[in-house]
Amino acid sequence: MIEMVHCLWKRSPLLAQVGRIRVRSYGTIKENSLITVKSCKLLRNSTFPEYVGSPHSKLHGMIWRQPLQNVYVVKKPWNDDVRQAMYQFIRHLHDQYPAVNVIVSEDVVDELIDETQEQGIRISESGPGSGPSPGSDVAGATETHTKPSKGKITLYTGSVEDVVNKTDVIVTLGGDGTILRAVSTFSNACVPPVLSFALGTLGFLLPFDFSKFATTFKMVYESRAKVLHRSRLECHVVRKVPEMSDSESSLKKKQIQQWKRQQENHSLSMVHAMNDIVLHRGGQPNLSSMDIFIDNTHLTTTTADGLVFATPTGSTAYSLSSGGSIVHPLVQCILLSPICPRSLSFRPLILPSISHVMIKMSEKNRNTSIKLSIDGIPQQDLHPGDEIHVVSENGTIYPQGNYAHLPAGIPTVKNNENMKPVPDTKASHHKGIWCVARSETDWTSDINELLGFNSSFKQNSRKE
Amino acid sequence: MIEMVHCLWKRSPLLAQVGRIRVRSYGTIKENSLITVKSCKLLRNSTFPEYVGSPHSKLHGMIWRQPLQNVYVVKKPWNDDVRQAMYQFIRHLHDQYPAVNVIVSEDVVDELIDETQEQGIRISESGPGSGPSPGSDVAGATETHTKPSKGKITLYTGSVEDVVNKTDVIVTLGGDGTILRAVSTFSNACVPPVLSFALGTLGFLLPFDFSKFATTFKMVYESRAKVLHRSRLECHVVRKVPEMSDSESSLKKKQIQQWKRQQENHSLSMVHAMNDIVLHRGGQPNLSSMDIFIDNTHLTTTTADGLVFATPTGSTAYSLSSGGSIVHPLVQCILLSPICPRSLSFRPLILPSISHVMIKMSEKNRNTSIKLSIDGIPQQDLHPGDEIHVVSENGTIYPQGNYAHLPAGIPTVKNNENMKPVPDTKASHHKGIWCVARSETDWTSDINELLGFNSSFKQNSRKE
Amino acid sequence: MIEMVHCLWKRSPLLAQVGRIRVRSYGTIKENSLITVKSCKLLRNSTFPEYVGSPHSKLHGMIWRQPLQNVYVVKKPWNDDVRQAMYQFIRHLHDQYPAVNVIVSEDVVDELIDETQEQGIRISESGPGSGPSPGSDVAGATETHTKPSKGKITLYTGSVEDVVNKTDVIVTLGGDGTILRAVSTFSNACVPPVLSFALGTLGFLLPFDFSKFATTFKMVYESRAKVLHRSRLECHVVRKVPEMSDSESSLKKKQIQQWKRQQENHSLSMVHAMNDIVLHRGGQPNLSSMDIFIDNTHLTTTTADGLVFATPTGSTAYSLSSGGSIVHPLVQCILLSPICPRSLSFRPLILPSISHVMIKMSEKNRNTSIKLSIDGIPQQDLHPGDEIHVVSENGTIYPQGNYAHLPAGIPTVKNNENMKPVPDTKASHHKGIWCVARSETDWTSDINELLGFNSSFKQNSRKE
Amino acid sequence: MIEMVHCLWKRSPLLAQVGRIRVRSYGTIKENSLITVKSCKLLRNSTFPEYVGSPHSKLHGMIWRQPLQNVYVVKKPWNDDVRQAMYQFIRHLHDQYPAVNVIVSEDVVDELIDETQEQGIRISESGPGSGPSPGSDVAGATETHTKPSKGKITLYTGSVEDVVNKTDVIVTLGGDGTILRAVSTFSNACVPPVLSFALGTLGFLLPFDFSKFATTFKMVYESRAKVLHRSRLECHVVRKVPEMSDSESSLKKKQIQQWKRQQENHSLSMVHAMNDIVLHRGGQPNLSSMDIFIDNTHLTTTTADGLVFATPTGSTAYSLSSGGSIVHPLVQCILLSPICPRSLSFRPLILPSISHVMIKMSEKNRNTSIKLSIDGIPQQDLHPGDEIHVVSENGTIYPQGNYAHLPAGIPTVKNNENMKPVPDTKASHHKGIWCVARSETDWTSDINELLGFNSSFKQNSRKE
Repeated sequence: MIEMVHCLWKRSPLLAQVGRIRVRSYGTIKENSLITVKSCKLLRNSTFPEYVGSPHSKLHGMIWRQPLQNVYVVKKPWNDDVRQAMYQFIRHLHDQYPAVNVIVSEDVVDELIDETQEQGIRISESGPGSGPSPGSDVAGATETHTKPSKGKITLYTGSVEDVVNKTDVIVTLGGDGTILRAVSTFSNACVPPVLSFALGTLGFLLPFDFSKFATTFKMVYESRAKVLHRSRLECHVVRKVPEMSDSESSLKKKQIQQWKRQQENHSLSMVHAMNDIVLHRGGQPNLSSMDIFIDNTHLTTTTADGLVFATPTGSTAYSLSSGGSIVHPLVQCILLSPICPRSLSFRPLILPSISHVMIKMSEKNRNTSIKLSIDGIPQQDLHPGDEIHVVSENGTIYPQGNYAHLPAGIPTVKNNENMKPVPDTKASHHKGIWCVARSETDWTSDINELLGFNSSFKQNSRKE
Repeated sequence: MIEMVHCLWKRSPLLAQVGRIRVRSYGTIKENSLITVKSCKLLRNSTFPEYVGSPHSKLHGMIWRQPLQNVYVVKKPWNDDVRQAMYQFIRHLHDQYPAVNVIVSEDVVDELIDETQEQGIRISESGPGSGPSPGSDVAGATETHTKPSKGKITLYTGSVEDVVNKTDVIVTLGGDGTILRAVSTFSNACVPPVLSFALGTLGFLLPFDFSKFATTFKMVYESRAKVLHRSRLECHVVRKVPEMSDSESSLKKKQIQQWKRQQENHSLSMVHAMNDIVLHRGGQPNLSSMDIFIDNTHLTTTTADGLVFATPTGSTAYSLSSGGSIVHPLVQCILLSPICPRSLSFRPLILPSISHVMIKMSEKNRNTSIKLSIDGIPQQDLHPGDEIHVVSENGTIYPQGNYAHLPAGIPTVKNNENMKPVPDTKASHHKGIWCVARSETDWTSDINELLGFNSSFKQNSRKE
Repeated sequence: MIEMVHCLWKRSPLLAQVGRIRVRSYGTIKENSLITVKSCKLLRNSTFPEYVGSPHSKLHGMIWRQPLQNVYVVKKPWNDDVRQAMYQFIRHLHDQYPAVNVIVSEDVVDELIDETQEQGIRISESGPGSGPSPGSDVAGATETHTKPSKGKITLYTGSVEDVVNKTDVIVTLGGDGTILRAVSTFSNACVPPVLSFALGTLGFLLPFDFSKFATTFKMVYESRAKVLHRSRLECHVVRKVPEMSDSESSLKKKQIQQWKRQQENHSLSMVHAMNDIVLHRGGQPNLSSMDIFIDNTHLTTTTADGLVFATPTGSTAYSLSSGGSIVHPLVQCILLSPICPRSLSFRPLILPSISHVMIKMSEKNRNTSIKLSIDGIPQQDLHPGDEIHVVSENGTIYPQGNYAHLPAGIPTVKNNENMKPVPDTKASHHKGIWCVARSETDWTSDINELLGFNSSFKQNSRKE
Repeated sequence: MIEMVHCLWKRSPLLAQVGRIRVRSYGTIKENSLITVKSCKLLRNSTFPEYVGSPHSKLHGMIWRQPLQNVYVVKKPWNDDVRQAMYQFIRHLHDQYPAVNVIVSEDVVDELIDETQEQGIRISESGPGSGPSPGSDVAGATETHTKPSKGKITLYTGSVEDVVNKTDVIVTLGGDGTILRAVSTFSNACVPPVLSFALGTLGFLLPFDFSKFATTFKMVYESRAKVLHRSRLECHVVRKVPEMSDSESSLKKKQIQQWKRQQENHSLSMVHAMNDIVLHRGGQPNLSSMDIFIDNTHLTTTTADGLVFATPTGSTAYSLSSGGSIVHPLVQCILLSPICPRSLSFRPLILPSISHVMIKMSEKNRNTSIKLSIDGIPQQDLHPGDEIHVVSENGTIYPQGNYAHLPAGIPTVKNNENMKPVPDTKASHHKGIWCVARSETDWTSDINELLGFNSSFKQNSRKE
């Protein structure tokens, strides 16, 4: 529980190259005339709010039983306006919330140091004073209220693991893509609540205009915010095991066994999707043949450009382009739509969130590969015989029996508690993403304003 | 044609408990050489099975804590094959399950008596013998095991209210339409589980082929059946109240007040939809303008031929024709799709089942009326200013505040217990329809076999 | 120059009822202080412009070899703004084009007389002077340049037949519906070119804003206008002939023979569609089964709410709502789309304009009727066994053989000359509708402005 | 393996007329025990049939004014069944039509020689004997009737150019892909009529089952065949010219000028599409922004996965998968459909075949490339600023003015003669593809059998 005093964390490659930084004691990593950067290991571990349901609301209240302290601010990279906004936001926290610490990723540290410096990067040689003394107890080991003199802003940074361990709330500045990226940082861990500000672009995940950042943050800080729960999908990739005949050379056998062992751990690389999981033939001239299984039963073999799995959150993204319905985020389901199918009758499907869907690349697709991308980020290609298994992060229901065919890590008994449309506070607060919302009716206004839903024709020929 | 003689008391739940009913010979209403018809008032009140969930199944077990006794058999009317099948089924129950009583509706009695009689309808004047003896207790007051001699089948019938009070399980013979009709009989009451046999036609609600009726019924009788839960929608119609100015004549005022009072009770005429609620301009040349509100927030004004609300069960019926997605019955949601909208961008919507959707006929639609039909059955037309309110039978969530705008009878606080995808056994067994299922994978095979889902092209031009 | 003496035209029922009108000689039918109404029989017969193609244009030039003289002005009825606009337009013609005569329908005469009068309707008893003298020859019988003194406007009116015989150009004031109505007046005759002004509503057939009526009319008058050719569909209804057995009473036989004779002339009631021909079950609960034949070959049997045939012009009207593609008016084709089909695989069809499509109401649809409407105007219902035959007004190609199955009046040999995308000037100027166009690119701008074609999402999640 | 000895002259049209060719024994290129291969330069130049329209048919008669002599047989490569079928077909021609010569491509020669040889490839050393005698006239200079003794089959082959010059009719054995490949051989030349046999696969371009090859070929040979005309699209690629500032180095300037010169000839590489022209982002994560111009007017900017242009022939291929309508081949039009557009309102478009459509890759697509494929064959990628111009091979209509913006080779004045739905025999027999058809109703049966058009639901819930 005792935090280390000296900064032993792993430096990013970039920082290592810059090299001009001397890290002494007391946490200061970098600084310029405006900013001091320290290790986020100095902060106390993250605390989560309680999400409180109400019989009169589709949203939950978000109550901080311990005060909100560590804010992880994520931004769209290398954009002047966004950087300016970020600085403004951080300065505001520094001035108004002395107890709040700002965490940023290491590349944002570099960007801010470079772009805000006035007199070059200066190495901090002064003793910290405000730093925790060695041997202090757990509480004391976390730096909470001290701020450097002279109005310099203190930022905290660290490895992905450290950031994940320390963050109480995520604040994003940018577009939907910034949120997807921020959330993916926490991939397999519990994701802190997300407060997102729109900067220029609009999006379904962007309820707040940046101009209102002060009142919005105050609302979150004072436990007056309402949050919407969004579930994610899990995508497990299972690679085809090469077949091994008796006559195989012992060297080859060893390789295959090694391969198998890696495969068994493969589910560790399972990826969460907040929006969608897309299979597509990419630029290949041949269409792909894929077998679709639902709950271990063969549904159909599809010949198509691809397939889209989407969460309700993602129903207004790529899934919509491929012909899917618009689904409210509170519907517990998995959307499955074809992309340009060679069929007139592959209508999009809405499956229960307790489903287990498996797609197997047909072995007939000789020499073809299928592109897999999750929330817009390309993954490794799939090849004939490979499978993906898609389940809700809330778990699935399997018939009793042998689960040898399933990738490790897929929960085989559903935690029913989590399946309520408005999830229970305690049991499931560590699943899905809680997003700060403007009001109960964000979705209704968003599909109108962002999608141009049901724009009426201006013509009038049949109404005279 | 001759009515029963003495059974004039009105059955009430209390009466059953009090007991002390002396049913003498008087139960026989009608008979011919093959069938004796008695009042179903003679039967004990209905008992419901327990629905038991499993962490390994999407279906529930259906366990009879008290033995299944009263079977309400519903058939497609005036079809020779169906009548033949019904007789075969009833005869089977008579022969194999002496403790089981068969209830049919009064028009089916007429049809069967007419079509099976050999020597005309004979008025039963004989003393009962088979009736319960005077002074028997409550249990004894119900006629369970006695069958007329000479192999004559005994059927029970009565008013809709009596049938509703006595039925343990519904058995349907016909198509999907027969089920919809059978279930609508129980409209606002708790619906007994449904066992449906296909006769010629196929359908999503028709899992069992009639040829297997013996083994299927045995499975149900012996508590070995699996059931799927299907939720329904409620449709509340609120008529526009005529405006009343001060200068109105006192006569007119009285009329309006009377109208208002009727309106307040109007929600009593709320109708359940197992498949869909359809609004359509019908044969009118003018398109209809309708305002759509979700949770009291205006979503859009649509100019279209109509709108379809569907349950997931109904997603493969008319909703599919109008462009909706295919939704698995376990997804808790409300489908809303436009019919021929004057817009390129009214994509079908999937709303959470906790939503309250209100459609208001635009006052601009002068002199137009909108046809309303529920599960294919036409209702009274709607006129400018009229509203329908659509909610799941499981209830909705409303923001705190004034509900004066809502029709009476819409539950304003959600019973969260009922919202799980696999509903809890006890709290919600009286909501929705429990349908006996073949297997966990009925849906997967049905969308292939019934819809011709994803039929691949036979042509092959792009794959050489 | 010479007016005919006796007014022999058929009076409208309305006029007859008004009764206060004394028609003496010299053509004056009605008048008030602003308007004098005369019979359009006084005008010379209609003359058609020449339509001149160009290798560099998709539009045709419209050249008046004889000066344009008789303008038939059609308006949306009983709308104050439209009436005001009409008066302004007529006044402009009166002032600026003394040689041009304005024809209006009889009901518009009534409306204008009623709404523009200042001192009540006054019967003109004065000798005309300008009236034609008895015995003048045909040519001289047309009144061209004379206008009543005192700035009174002269309007011409008459029976539908007379209006059709006299009109050189149609000018419409209103919406698309006004044009459809105006054109339907000329149903089976050659339709004069159409100049349409938008008043409030927008539409694909409404290129010109009314504010520019002066310059627009001048352009037409001076043979500087460009016109777009729009083809129509013909809808022939063939009723099922009741079967006649030998044992039929001779009275019944007579009736049937009479019925058959009427049927043979039925094609006289053939109706042209500028936009669309819609078959729909209307408010009936049962879906309709219809057999579709293309060129006498069975294509499919459809169970659906209905079917839409559309011209390319109508592709942006109801056909679009039912899922059809957007088709440019110069594509020679027939669109056929289903309305809410009970099939996942009835993709809309685009057939060559030389096709003959026949829809037969299935005899299985017992007791049902199908609503037929053409350009939004309801026609007589269709019943089981009835057929409609749809062909382009340019004719079809039939295989050699027996045409007994075809309704009289369907041309069985195609006039190939008319099938060019840009029809030849001379051969086909009497087919289809020539509409004055703004520019070559009206269509491109219209689908953007009127349909909101390809409105992009405002959200931006995938583009960072 | 031994190549031909003496046939080194280059064939020219003139040469054929001049005659005076002495072909000695020297035609044999390769042979084995079953097959002798000669140069197709020995054959007379190709002759085209006359296509004769009829007022009673949508198809044309195909009349050989000179006897059909040179048959180019194309097959799906390296498939045992297809090779077997080909041998059977060639043997049939050899036996039954001594005057008919069979041409195959060089790779098919290799395949056949390898797979049919019995005793190894033998070098022909024998004197010709069978060759035309010296001094024979022009007609005699072409080898028509002579066949090698011993039943050996003679095949003719040569360069693509030679094959193009000699072929009277194309016979394909395989699937639709085989036809597309065969036709692309003739890319910019006049394409001979196509007779296609289905082998295993089915397709819209495959009217005849191989089992009927004998009667089918006889019908073609005896001028009794009916043919359907299919138009193609032209795709012209125009690459963005790099900008050249004054300060550019003279070396760079030279390079750019060279680039420009190549560009000017670029339209020579124009490609015909029988089915479709597809633009797609391929495997790139970013969506592509493209500007669409119709007849030089901006229609819209689309953000989508891609766009499909299709001929009516291609309307049942990829265009259908992307949501396009089904269009009969006789409709003169260009289909334009989006692939997964980021818009709810990009409905597919049907443009007149006289349109000129230009797609410009947005310059905003930094670092992206768009994949272009024509009839399924990948072409060079497109980059920001590049354009493609799509027109019908029958030509377009342009407004008068400056055509500097058009790629060379796009005809700027329409040949109106070619625009009739059933093209005129003489003027246009060299445009498009004439495909031998079974009957007038091939299309109707094909969309049923190949696409499963309008498969009705088996369920029946609404019809009781």
